[in-house]
Amino acid sequence: MFNAIVSADTLQAALDSVSVLVDECKIHLDEDGIEIRAVDPANVGMVDMTLEASAFESYETDGGLIGVNLARLEDIAGMGDAGQLVHLELDEETRKLHIAIDGLEYTLALIDPDSIRQEPDLPDLDLPAHVVIEGRDIARSVKAADMVSDHIALGVDSADELFYVDAEGDTDDVHLELDEGDLIDLTAGDAHSLFSLDYLKNMNKAIPKDAEVRMELGEEFPVKMHFDFAEGQGNVTYMLAPRIQSE
Amino acid sequence: MFNAIVSADTLQAALDSVSVLVDECKIHLDEDGIEIRAVDPANVGMVDMTLEASAFESYETDGGLIGVNLARLEDIAGMGDAGQLVHLELDEETRKLHIAIDGLEYTLALIDPDSIRQEPDLPDLDLPAHVVIEGRDIARSVKAADMVSDHIALGVDSADELFYVDAEGDTDDVHLELDEGDLIDLTAGDAHSLFSLDYLKNMNKAIPKDAEVRMELGEEFPVKMHFDFAEGQGNVTYMLAPRIQSE
Amino acid sequence: MFNAIVSADTLQAALDSVSVLVDECKIHLDEDGIEIRAVDPANVGMVDMTLEASAFESYETDGGLIGVNLARLEDIAGMGDAGQLVHLELDEETRKLHIAIDGLEYTLALIDPDSIRQEPDLPDLDLPAHVVIEGRDIARSVKAADMVSDHIALGVDSADELFYVDAEGDTDDVHLELDEGDLIDLTAGDAHSLFSLDYLKNMNKAIPKDAEVRMELGEEFPVKMHFDFAEGQGNVTYMLAPRIQSE
Repeated sequence: MFNAIVSADTLQAALDSVSVLVDECKIHLDEDGIEIRAVDPANVGMVDMTLEASAFESYETDGGLIGVNLARLEDIAGMGDAGQLVHLELDEETRKLHIAIDGLEYTLALIDPDSIRQEPDLPDLDLPAHVVIEGRDIARSVKAADMVSDHIALGVDSADELFYVDAEGDTDDVHLELDEGDLIDLTAGDAHSLFSLDYLKNMNKAIPKDAEVRMELGEEFPVKMHFDFAEGQGNVTYMLAPRIQSE
Repeated sequence: MFNAIVSADTLQAALDSVSVLVDECKIHLDEDGIEIRAVDPANVGMVDMTLEASAFESYETDGGLIGVNLARLEDIAGMGDAGQLVHLELDEETRKLHIAIDGLEYTLALIDPDSIRQEPDLPDLDLPAHVVIEGRDIARSVKAADMVSDHIALGVDSADELFYVDAEGDTDDVHLELDEGDLIDLTAGDAHSLFSLDYLKNMNKAIPKDAEVRMELGEEFPVKMHFDFAEGQGNVTYMLAPRIQSE
Repeated sequence: MFNAIVSADTLQAALDSVSVLVDECKIHLDEDGIEIRAVDPANVGMVDMTLEASAFESYETDGGLIGVNLARLEDIAGMGDAGQLVHLELDEETRKLHIAIDGLEYTLALIDPDSIRQEPDLPDLDLPAHVVIEGRDIARSVKAADMVSDHIALGVDSADELFYVDAEGDTDDVHLELDEGDLIDLTAGDAHSLFSLDYLKNMNKAIPKDAEVRMELGEEFPVKMHFDFAEGQGNVTYMLAPRIQSE
């Protein structure tokens, strides 16, 4: 059983954070909220998104697991204006999700969860450097790196207490430094890793410009990025695997 | 003889309502205003547009019939700002239309009316169900149906006094119900017909979001849609033939 | 040595005026400011752009000549908000230009100036007709002509004291007349020349809508257009060669 009401913009934010990585996903319907974990086909980018029951106007479930086509569900959520309420109700018998927005009813055929790629477990990494940065600064870093390269290096200089972004093109280079004054918070520790820019560009699309993003970084280690939405009742964690650096 | 002055936005609204169906059309220059009737090449969608002489700043004609390329005439009207006046004058000798907007003169070669597809007569159908609906609700219906199908069913449930929209996709369905509270007016009568969504999407482009649209519906019958523009001095009627329903 | 600070929007305006004609250019670093002269590959359109040292927040050079990829330099300038300052510093040894905007550093590889097409000298032409016209009227002329033709005739009728624009299509014609009341200034003299519309469209992209543009015109002669930017401290001159008129 699943019967819930949520605002259209909260639903969209939750779905957008996952759809930048995968087309289909499993949604866990738990008593304390919903959770989606997914990894892209190349096993490079992972996401763990939770939306607490308290983020919903009403929320009832006795647990369950459904598989959905994300683009389709996003289109439906997009039919609602920002504040409009979306009513979601699972029909256990037909395995369809009934979605209602202001007189509009959409019947969404679910996907067999077993046919969807297995969910990842995002490992605890205990990374040495932590940075809290505004979403708009991630956007700026990605845009700058994109001018010269397909890769982007993220690092922390523990001596100078700086977070930095590097991108090296065939002829041109980009370098961005943010110190404690530019950042919301910085726990210095040696960190430098190279990432595929395409993945970071996609993740950036789902990060609100005014979000406080907590990044965890290491030496040739994955980067983790955490941010909240829906007034803190929604939480997204991205993990992006590093590229091997050719010396 | 034809010599008239009209605001650019009124001219554009008149032309747009026809150009969503055809590329060329005949314009009747009558003493009480202009009229355009046209049917698309597949004989599925028809339009009858009239713009009264009183909608013009000045209007003089002794009658006539001209053939025009609609895209071209729309481009010219688009050179004017919303409130700007467009001066139209027919040169009988050269069969050209002189169009002037704020110092800009455009000489438009007319098309031989005999080379343009014959005009339709929109039949009186005496349809059982009448609905008066806001343009924005037609837009919403079309957008919702477009998520799942190329077809859209429009109907009236006379028992429940409801107007409804149905679209059935391969796996997903959309259903929208509008009752008397959602509609401007409803005269119930049994009605249900299936239409090609492409045509309704095109007609929807020309329907202002805040227009009051009167729809006439029947069982496996064409739908008629009427709306006004130019403060009631312009009137558009669309008629759309139904698709045969495969049972 | 070259070390200068300038606002992002001033830098963009300077670069845009040149990039509508060429992809690469030489920049003269003179003591009193920078200058770019360029001609398109077909030798039809020329530009001479100067930006005075006083338009910069700070400006130091002992002279020099650098070659740049304009699209790349525009992208970098585009990373700054309108009022943000861009710091430009030439590294003589590596022949790279260091560009810094609010913590972002971009290292731009320069192009060997000898590999860039030779700079034109814009000749003094002593043309008989002078017109001072708003940028928005050039935009309107170009848009109107574009409806019917790939060419545009610009002329001055010295008897009627009019500036006019003519475009002749296969079936339709466009004619625009601006008299002394519509223009900022007019020094009448017989002038009529035909131009390629594509070039004028490109130049128009770089002309602000509210700019006062001084045009110099003759009989089958090039047209010259001058306008200022950066509060008069930047100056652009375009010269466009006429097309031979087929009689």
